[in-house]
Parts: sequence; structure tokens; C-alpha cells
Amino acid sequence: MADRRIGIIINGATGRMGTTQHMAHLLAIAAEGGLKLKNGDRLIPELMLVGRDARRMAALAAAHGNQRWTTNLDEALAGPDRIFMDCSATGGRPERVRKAIAAGKHIHIEKPTAPTVEEAMELARLADKAGLKHGVIQDKLFLPGFAKLLFVKNSGFFGRILSVKIDAGSWIFDGATQECQRPSWNYRKRDGGGLALDMMAHWRYMIDRLVAPVTAVSALMSTAMPERVDEAGQRYTVDAEDTNYALLQMQGGAIGVILNSWATRPRREDTMMVQIDGSNGSAVAGRFRCYTQSAVNTPEAFIKAAVPGGVDLMAHWQEVPDAIPVKPPFRQCWELFLRHVGEDAPYLPTLIEGAKAVQLADLAYRSFAERRWIDVPELRL
Amino acid sequence: MADRRIGIIINGATGRMGTTQHMAHLLAIAAEGGLKLKNGDRLIPELMLVGRDARRMAALAAAHGNQRWTTNLDEALAGPDRIFMDCSATGGRPERVRKAIAAGKHIHIEKPTAPTVEEAMELARLADKAGLKHGVIQDKLFLPGFAKLLFVKNSGFFGRILSVKIDAGSWIFDGATQECQRPSWNYRKRDGGGLALDMMAHWRYMIDRLVAPVTAVSALMSTAMPERVDEAGQRYTVDAEDTNYALLQMQGGAIGVILNSWATRPRREDTMMVQIDGSNGSAVAGRFRCYTQSAVNTPEAFIKAAVPGGVDLMAHWQEVPDAIPVKPPFRQCWELFLRHVGEDAPYLPTLIEGAKAVQLADLAYRSFAERRWIDVPELRL
Amino acid sequence: MADRRIGIIINGATGRMGTTQHMAHLLAIAAEGGLKLKNGDRLIPELMLVGRDARRMAALAAAHGNQRWTTNLDEALAGPDRIFMDCSATGGRPERVRKAIAAGKHIHIEKPTAPTVEEAMELARLADKAGLKHGVIQDKLFLPGFAKLLFVKNSGFFGRILSVKIDAGSWIFDGATQECQRPSWNYRKRDGGGLALDMMAHWRYMIDRLVAPVTAVSALMSTAMPERVDEAGQRYTVDAEDTNYALLQMQGGAIGVILNSWATRPRREDTMMVQIDGSNGSAVAGRFRCYTQSAVNTPEAFIKAAVPGGVDLMAHWQEVPDAIPVKPPFRQCWELFLRHVGEDAPYLPTLIEGAKAVQLADLAYRSFAERRWIDVPELRL
Amino acid sequence: MADRRIGIIINGATGRMGTTQHMAHLLAIAAEGGLKLKNGDRLIPELMLVGRDARRMAALAAAHGNQRWTTNLDEALAGPDRIFMDCSATGGRPERVRKAIAAGKHIHIEKPTAPTVEEAMELARLADKAGLKHGVIQDKLFLPGFAKLLFVKNSGFFGRILSVKIDAGSWIFDGATQECQRPSWNYRKRDGGGLALDMMAHWRYMIDRLVAPVTAVSALMSTAMPERVDEAGQRYTVDAEDTNYALLQMQGGAIGVILNSWATRPRREDTMMVQIDGSNGSAVAGRFRCYTQSAVNTPEAFIKAAVPGGVDLMAHWQEVPDAIPVKPPFRQCWELFLRHVGEDAPYLPTLIEGAKAVQLADLAYRSFAERRWIDVPELRL
Repeated sequence: MADRRIGIIINGATGRMGTTQHMAHLLAIAAEGGLKLKNGDRLIPELMLVGRDARRMAALAAAHGNQRWTTNLDEALAGPDRIFMDCSATGGRPERVRKAIAAGKHIHIEKPTAPTVEEAMELARLADKAGLKHGVIQDKLFLPGFAKLLFVKNSGFFGRILSVKIDAGSWIFDGATQECQRPSWNYRKRDGGGLALDMMAHWRYMIDRLVAPVTAVSALMSTAMPERVDEAGQRYTVDAEDTNYALLQMQGGAIGVILNSWATRPRREDTMMVQIDGSNGSAVAGRFRCYTQSAVNTPEAFIKAAVPGGVDLMAHWQEVPDAIPVKPPFRQCWELFLRHVGEDAPYLPTLIEGAKAVQLADLAYRSFAERRWIDVPELRL
Repeated sequence: MADRRIGIIINGATGRMGTTQHMAHLLAIAAEGGLKLKNGDRLIPELMLVGRDARRMAALAAAHGNQRWTTNLDEALAGPDRIFMDCSATGGRPERVRKAIAAGKHIHIEKPTAPTVEEAMELARLADKAGLKHGVIQDKLFLPGFAKLLFVKNSGFFGRILSVKIDAGSWIFDGATQECQRPSWNYRKRDGGGLALDMMAHWRYMIDRLVAPVTAVSALMSTAMPERVDEAGQRYTVDAEDTNYALLQMQGGAIGVILNSWATRPRREDTMMVQIDGSNGSAVAGRFRCYTQSAVNTPEAFIKAAVPGGVDLMAHWQEVPDAIPVKPPFRQCWELFLRHVGEDAPYLPTLIEGAKAVQLADLAYRSFAERRWIDVPELRL
Repeated sequence: MADRRIGIIINGATGRMGTTQHMAHLLAIAAEGGLKLKNGDRLIPELMLVGRDARRMAALAAAHGNQRWTTNLDEALAGPDRIFMDCSATGGRPERVRKAIAAGKHIHIEKPTAPTVEEAMELARLADKAGLKHGVIQDKLFLPGFAKLLFVKNSGFFGRILSVKIDAGSWIFDGATQECQRPSWNYRKRDGGGLALDMMAHWRYMIDRLVAPVTAVSALMSTAMPERVDEAGQRYTVDAEDTNYALLQMQGGAIGVILNSWATRPRREDTMMVQIDGSNGSAVAGRFRCYTQSAVNTPEAFIKAAVPGGVDLMAHWQEVPDAIPVKPPFRQCWELFLRHVGEDAPYLPTLIEGAKAVQLADLAYRSFAERRWIDVPELRL
Repeated sequence: MADRRIGIIINGATGRMGTTQHMAHLLAIAAEGGLKLKNGDRLIPELMLVGRDARRMAALAAAHGNQRWTTNLDEALAGPDRIFMDCSATGGRPERVRKAIAAGKHIHIEKPTAPTVEEAMELARLADKAGLKHGVIQDKLFLPGFAKLLFVKNSGFFGRILSVKIDAGSWIFDGATQECQRPSWNYRKRDGGGLALDMMAHWRYMIDRLVAPVTAVSALMSTAMPERVDEAGQRYTVDAEDTNYALLQMQGGAIGVILNSWATRPRREDTMMVQIDGSNGSAVAGRFRCYTQSAVNTPEAFIKAAVPGGVDLMAHWQEVPDAIPVKPPFRQCWELFLRHVGEDAPYLPTLIEGAKAVQLADLAYRSFAERRWIDVPELRL
């Protein structure tokens, strides 16, 4: 039962995700004496923080127990640390990952892993050939509500799954009278903006695992608000979509729909909700809660709801209780990857999954451009 | 201020709609002394009930003040009555309407007006050439919730309309352990079944009037439950879709989605709900209630909802009060048509609208078959 | 579509069950124009009331539309009526049934069908040989709560059924200061008393159908209150059990327990409750309501309930809604038997089932007397 | 009024019970200046912690005020401490107790005291012959609800006790999708597993003291879930029972039933509930609350409950208030034993009681194996 230290480079440490998620949870694991492996060993993360602004880096490192830091990524990659996390801006990520692979680092990065499927698969193949472990962050399935939904699915509760509906989004202010809650680059194509590019990555792994692998997509996109005001108070033209609808077909015959918009005012429990209907029961989940309705608890609604007050459709749902342990999503992502590296534990969200995420966004854009359904080809190393 | 009697043939009087809607509301108008026209005249409906089962017809007519009745439609059409309502089985409707037009009757019928767009338009043209008034029942917009939604739209509340979402359906029992709430022919193509054929008619006029005319559609259909038990307790194979999703584009740039299923368990206020998002505000309506959220009342939700309990998304909606008069939907359909006949009042839902309803169902089927978007051509006399 | 009249002898018409259940529901069927068969025919019950007290009989018959009546059962059996219902005192039932079989009547009787299994089976065999239809009243499964429980079982909700618990009973006053709610003969062996003899009949068919056929029983009986006061105000000694516990084994490996007592003070929703636990879910039903808990909705209770307020065990149950049609239990018993006679519809609760009911009570007494488990042999014609 | 120190060996100090119950409560007594005896003396516990893992022992001892510790039990027994508590794993307990008796220690141990009744009685006799005090932990009767139930019984409230029902258990997850709340050895016979072996010890002393000594038992056992997943994520076959029902007879004529299962989903106030019915009143208790219903408060339920809403069976119970002082159960066990040792106070739960607990489990297994009732022989020194 030994203590084993493992060096982890965090590139983009001063960003919001870098600081509050990656750094914070890895430090928490270290503070608890490391992650306990099956053989009793403890894997203790040791961080190397990388960022561009030396002054901010120095402050960050000092505030968290004098962590190691540098503004020179090449220097960091030349060192002995074993894992490379890239959570800095999306642009340039493939090049940084290629460097890290060349330096023999295991790769654990944020999505999107690359701007195109081809590049994303190339990274997967490079890492695989180099014998390195690789993974992409898939945090949403670890949110309590969706974790419960996955548990409901895996328990066989649904019987045959018939359909899935993802209803997500909220009103993003345009920056004129109320501050915009998203960075302005999200609304410019040339800067990597676009709702589908941002979110299809999440919907892909959620649908693949909550229902079944996606086999075809028909998408509809739109820019609801054509003009916005940026961080500097300047008006600018939006050329990226802020609304994205998609119809989906899945292996096994289930169908699905994604309704995702930054220009909608939700009237429901959470901004992000998933409903799955099955032959034996249905479930509805937001990020924090999940409800089920069995076939035997399904009320007659077709006739009764035609009369005001005829049936209370909210009353026949039962919440899934907290019977499964809850940890913060990014913490769980890291624990799985550390076990994968530290004791070769099975691991699902490799860079192939990262490429699948890019793929669905890509095909959605093509589908909308060509005004037709597009099949989703299988991706292999 | 004269009393003017107007004879109305109701073909299909013993059917559920014939009895509880058409006959009942026309008798109610008559019982109130007729419909008061602008010039003070009163238009008093006089019914001629038509059906196939003489015993049931006799009982029905006797139970409602000894109304006139016959089992011979030709005989009825040869008489002096002026309006022909056809609410009997869908099959054979065009032929019956053609006969009625030939007999010089004004035409007021249930949807679908014909099995194909061409036949539906032919009926419209025939009636028009004959100088007859014609109309199709469009009842859903008169339901209190949707009437309020139309009022909200017409008031300019939305600003520019961005998108519309129709979420409709409930779980229809399969007839095995619980009685099926729909007739079995709804599930057989050869008998005129299919959810899209049944409901697209409604969605067409709702979207056309609540938002803007539909210009293109991409549909996805599915048969969730492939086997059911019929009225006689016999298992049968379902070959019609019970689930129908559609993406829509509309004049002016708004986009839309229809989620309609007989195999879903709704967790919301009503089984049938419509949400419209606009630049200045949004509204959500079920059949009985309607809620709005202005731009100025829109809460920050993108960031706040990411934390459990961060924002109550239901709390920022305001109900539209009962400031507009409420009458039963079919009563309103009849009053509009009677004024159209009796005093040439303006009238929207002519047989051209009936053809548009058929058209959207038709194009949805084609879109799904050809796996692509289909444009919606304009229909003209 | 003909009207067919069917004569029914009700022996014991002035008793509580005879009047409020059998006569009342048969008259209701007649008043509705008879029971509609599959071919459209209507089966219209015509009653022949039989009882011992001529004055009461005359009053009863007069009060309900001048029904036919007699105090001479032999006379009634000699007539043309086709069905014989015996709901008079248990003693002498087999002899009356044998007479009715000899007279060619179909047999539909109350339980217990006979005092011993052998006699009960003899009746079944006699009726079968004579080519007559035969049945026994099994009303409890038609109570709304238990009908829902049966629906839940038949839907497959439970997965593999693990166990069943019947908890039934309430405090029967001893007649001294508060009036006893049961007749005193219930507490005297020689008069056919005994809780097991009375109620095992119900538990047998409930368990056989809600779970699986019973294969073995170990019973424990007791007389909690050894002395009571009878209808005449006289003290008497109780020699029949008023408390009956039984452990059960069933086909397929499920186990069960019956807790039945007239000397218990229930603290629960209903005096009669059934819980079934299955691998995929559990259900609890009283006579009027039924609740389910799926595996996915099962809270962690082992640890949490060890702390006051740690978990609300009542909160994780969902009521089964009224999605299945409800009719009074005895009405349903009669409709099934009339269809069995009138159109040879399939029928489960024949006199063999009646014998099984007697059998379980009999074996429970033997088990308690011999202080051991007793296997339940299969009964066949 | 002297301070008297008394040395106590806790073997198994790092186990859950050892740390959170035995060590914690003894340290609390010491921290309060010791247990005040009748003569005013104070008995101050001084602990000697014994366990196998030196590192954990050192940490535990250090964290609680530098208690004495060792990994060598023989060394501890050779020392001057006067009481031996064994709360380590069940296997090997008799041998350890024999050693402790040989070393002249008073014996206060966890249940089961030995794997067989003979060995358990041998320990009782050895301790008795050696003139040592001896006791077994019986904590459940000190839980507030059951303490109140015992108070109700001792007050004579029940009149003649007629029956007792123990309904206990909850759903223990199988370890596949949700973490199992019990160690896997509980489900393996060879490792000392089995629900009856675990819990009959508790039911024995609860029934003996809440009602009357048990005289005969008929048991039914079952393994509801035949396969589970262990602490290391491996599937294993369950060969111990997880469900245990038992019928009981008691001195004085009362009867009882135990329903105990790790595969049930309770719909009641607590997972562990006891109901006692008596001629003058009844009581129902969970671990934390207790309710009574006197004969004079008993509602008519037999007739009223046959109608929906006819009687509210929960409304006629009255809670027993907090009129008796509440201390943690294990604290009370220790105080009684310390007074027994320190001032020869009367003491009930000697090792003979420990043997009775083993006896009931043993006879339950025999009863189920031989499919018959087994009498419970009296145990004497």
C-alpha cells in the first residue's frame, strides 16, 4: 500500500474551468491523501499550472499552496509530469495535444477535442499508437439528475426505449440593456462560435449512453437575435446559430429530438431537461432531479385532460431518491481517468468519444446546409 | 328584425361529434332564438339529421325535440335545406361534398376534407365556382388557452416571433390490460389511421395563424407500439405511425417544432401545449390557460439554473386573465359560418384552409419517406 | 341481436348478501336492458327469490318490482329457471347444490362450497358430469385496490415475485359493552365458526392469482378472547379461533405470510392490506387504493432510517391511478358467470376453485394441529 | 465519595461498533468524571484498545486523548484491566472469551456470544464458576420507541397480551448499480452470514421482555436475491437467507410473528416496527416513537373500513410522550454493566441471555429444515 505521486499539467489553469473544476478537484483529491486504488495504493496528484499571464499565474499558484507553475507550455511538456489536461481556448488545441503526445504525456482534455472529425480521430490514433491513455471530459452524465437517469436506464426500467427528448436552453441577454451571460465569440463563426458546435458534444454522449448510439440526424438552425453587444459595449453582427433543433434516429429503433436554444424562455423545472419514454415506463430529468412514471402508474390523460382540471399530470411522477453516491461531475471525470492511468481500469470516454462529439455537430451543420437527413458513420481507430 | 330559418343537414348525426358538438350547439343557438345578425335579424337553424341506423336516428331525433331525420342522404340533399355538414366517417367525404355542391348547398365540413390535396382543392374550386360558401371546422383555436395565445400574438406582445414549439400527446393504452382510448382504425393505414393524418390538420392552422404560414417541413415518424388489442379483444398489428415529430420553417424566418405522440407520458400542465418565443416576450399555452413572460420579466437563468434551487423558472410567468369571452369551440365555428352565409361576414377557414391541412400531413409523410426537407407550395383557387 | 331471458333462483334472498349483493346487482343488470353479449344479444336476468320467512319474502319481492318468490326451494328447482345461487346459511349447502344439479341448474354459489374438500370436489365433479356450468363467488379481487394490484402483477411490474404479506383484521368487540360486529356463530366451531374457515377461502384465490399457486402451509391459530356475549346478551365460551397466522410457500419460490385476526387494532390505511415484493418493484394495496415503488425509486432505508427523520418511507410510493374501469365486485362476478352460461366465455372460478378454498382452510387446521408444514395437493376433476 | 478507576479492554476497537459505540460512550462517561454509583463513588473507565492494524490503532488512540493500545490481545489480558469487551469479528469469539475468563476478566461482549447454544452456555457457566460478572449487549430495547413500548408493557396497559408482530427490514441494494449497505459476508453462510443468525438475537430478548419468554417457533426462510456484487465489484452467489419469517408461541398463551427481510420495500413509519395487541389496549412502536390505543379508544373498523373513507385508522392512536429519560442505547448497556460490576447492581442480560439469543436463531434454522414447530427448551446454568 504505497503512495504514488502523479504529475498533471493543467494548461489553461486561470480560466474558469481550469481553476474551479480541474485544479480544485485535483487539489481536493491530493488533500484527502490521494485516490485509493484497488490494491490499496494511493495516487496523489501533483499539479503543474500553465497559463499566459505570469502575474495571475503566480497569484493563483500562491493562493493554492504554492503549486508549481509556468507560462511556457513547452517547458512544462519537457518535464516529468505524466498527464496533460488542456482546458484553455479551443483554438490550437490539436497542435497542443500533438505536442503533448510527442512528449509522451497521457491526454485528458476538454471538448471539442478538435475542429473537425478527421483531426479529432487523428489525435485519438496518435495517442493510441504512442501507447498513451487518452480521454475527454464528459461531465453532464455525472450531474445528479442525469446520473439517476442513466441508472434508471441501466436498471431496465424503461423496457424498450421508444423516444428521447432533450429540451435545453434559456434566454441569453443581448448585452444591450442586460449583460450577456456568454462570451461574444460564442456568436461568431470565425471564433469557434455556434450553439451546435458547443453543445452537440454533450448531447452526443448523453444520447449514446442514455438511449442508444445515434445513427442519423436532421437539423434545423437559426439565428434568433442577429445583432448583439460585446464585452466592450460594441454592437456586432451574429453569424453563428443561437438555436438548434435536431431530429435523431438511434440504433434499435428509438427516435429523438433535441431542442436547444439561447433564445427561449423556459417554463419548466430546469433549463436542461431530458425525457425518455419506454414501453414499461418514462423518466424526466433535469440536472439535479429525476422523476419516473411506470406503465402501471400512468394515468388516463387523453380523455381526462380534455376537461379543465380533469387530471393532474404532475401528480403521477415519483422522484428517484438519492440512493446512489453523489460527487461533483469533474471530480468523477478525474477519478475515472486517474484509475485508467494508475491501474488500467476500464474507461469509456476516450478521444474516440471526443471525435464522435465533434462528428454529431459536424453532421448537424451538413444536414441543415443540405436540407436532408445525414447518416452517422461509425468511427474506428 | 326578422326571424330567418336556415335548414342545415347534419350527415353523421349519431356519431360522437355529430351529436355532442354539431347538433348540440346548433340546437342551443335555435333554443336561444337564433343567432342575432348585425341588422338585428335572427338566423334560426333547423336541422335535418342524416345517419345509417334508422332505430338510432329515430331515438336521437325524438330525444331532441322531434328533429327531422332520414337515412337517405340523397333525399336530404334534394330538399330545401341550405347548409351541408359532413361529420360522418372520413371515407367517401369528397363524393358526398360533390353531391352537396351539385345540389347547391353551402358546405361546412369536418377535417380532413379529402384524402389528397388535389381532391381537397378540387372541392374548394367546385364550391367557389358554384358561388357557394364553404368552410372547414378549425376548433382548437377557440379553446380558451389557445384563443388567449392568439390574442397575445395579435396584440403584438411577442415582437418578432422567433420560434414555436408544439408539445402534444399522451399515453394511449394498448387495449391489453387497459382499455384503448382511441378507435383501432386510428392505428391502421388502410382504414385512414395515422397520427400525422389526424393531427397535422390542427397544427397547420394553429401555426399559420399563431405564428406565420409554414414554408417547409422535415418530419420523423415512428410506430412505438407495434401491436395492440382492438375493440373485440383481438391482437392486431399497427402499421400507422403513433409518433410524429416535425421541424418547420415559416414565413418571416421563424422556426418551429412539433412533437406529437400517442406513446409519451407527459409531465406538464396539459397534454397539448404550445410555446411561442419572440424578441419581446414569450407565451406558453395549454388548452385552458395561457402564460406570458415579457423581455423585461425574463430572469437570468443560464447561470443561476446551474445551481440547485438557483432560480424558480415557473415563478416568472404571468397568467393571461379571462378578459375575452369564452364560448364552446364548435359553437364559435358555427356562429362564424352562419354569419358568413347569413350576412356575408368575412370568413377565414374556407375549403382552401381545409386543403392546406391535408397538404401539411401529406408533405410530412413525403418528407419522412424521402428523408429530406420539403417546401410547402402555396395553394390557390 | 335478440333479447334472451334467463331465470335465476336466489336461495337466501333475505340475507344481507342475498339482498344487497346478488338480488341488487342482477336487478341492476335487468334494469339496464340486460347484459350485452359479444354477438349483440342481451341476457336479461329474471329472478326467483327463495327464503324461509314468507312475510319477509313477500315484502322483499314487492319492494323490488314484484319479483317472483317462494318459500319452497324444491318448488323453485322444479321450475324452468336455469341458474341456482345459494347464499343462505353454510350448513346444508352441499345437499342443496346436489338437488340443483339433479334438477339441471347451472350452479353459482357463495363460499365455502362445502365443509370438506372431498364434498367440495364431489360437487364440482357432479356439476361437470351433468354438463352444467358452475362457479363460486370470488369478490375480493374485484375490489378496486386489489384489482389494481392484479393489474400491476399482470403487467410484469414486479419482475420476479419474492414474497407476499396479507395483513388483515380489526378489533371485533366482545358484545359486553360494545355490540359485536360479527354473528356469534362465527365463534362456535359446531356452528361453522372459525376465522380460518371464513377467510382462507379469500386468501387462497387472492394468493393463487396475485402471486402463484400455494404449495405448502404452516399455520398458527389462537383464541384471543375466550368469552363473548351473544345476540341475546348471554355470555358464551368461544371455541373457534379468532386469530390465524400462516406461513406459505408458492410455486416458483415466492414465500408468503397471512396475518389475520379479529383481535388486533390496526394502525394502517385499511384493515385488509396486501404487500407484494418483487425483484423490480413492490406494491401495497388495500381494498380501495394501490401504491407502487419501483426498484429505481427505492430509497436507501437501512442506514437512513436508523436516524430519526432520516428518510420518509411513505414518500417514495406512487398511487396506481384509476385507468381501469371500476364496477361493484359482485356485479363483476355475475357478469362473468352470465357470459360463461350465455356465450360459453372462459371462466376461472369454477367449483374446483371453490374446493381449493376449502382445502387451504382445511390444511391450515391440520398444520396447526400437527405442528408442521403441510403440502397442498393439486385438485383435479 | 472516591474516584475508582476501572480498566476496560476493547478488542475490535477500530471496527465501526468498537469505535463509534463502545469506545465513544466509555470515553464520554470518563469525560463526565465517571459513572456515579449509589454510594457516591465515581467509576472512571480507563481503556485499553486492541486491534490488528498497528497504524490504525496508533491513529485511533492518538485521536482520542492518547488511549493505551496494543495489537497483542494476550498482552492486554495479562494486564490489570478488569473488563473484557469483545466487539471484533464473530469468528473466534468463544476462544477469546475463554482466555479472558481464564485471566479473571469480567465479560461484556457483543452478540452472538458463540456459534452454538452449547458453547454459549459453556461460556456462561465458565464465567459463573469463576465468580466473574458477565453480560451481552442488548441495545435495541434502549432505543426510545422500544423503551417506551417496554414502559407501556410494564405499566400493565395491555391487560392480557394476545399477540406480538415484529415487522422489520428494508431493501438492501445488490451492489450492482447501487452500493450494498451490508458487508458481503452477511450473505455467505461460511462467513457467518444469514439474516436469522444476525437478527434473531435481537428478536429473542425483545419478545422475552416485551411480551413473555418464547416457547416454540416455526420458521420460513428464503434467499430472495440469489446473486450480488461484493465490495470488490465481483458477482457472487448468495447461500445465506435474506428473508426470515417466524411464528412464535410464548408463555401465557400469547402468539407472535416475526417478518424480517432484506428484500422488502417498507411502506410504514420505520423499517423496524413492533405491534403488541392486548385485551385492554394495543401499542405500535418504531425505533423512535410509540403509539397506543386503549380498548376504550378503539374505533369500530370491521364495518366502517369496508367503505372508502369510512374510518381513519391512523387517527385513533395516541403517541407516548417523552416522559422517560433518553440516553444512547450502548451508553445504557455500559452503565448497567458497570453498576453490576462496580456495586453488584441487579443485571438481566447475562451470558445466559446471550445463549438464548443464539438458541432462537438455531431453533429457527432447525424448524425450517425439519418443516415443523420446535419447542424452545429452558436454559439453565
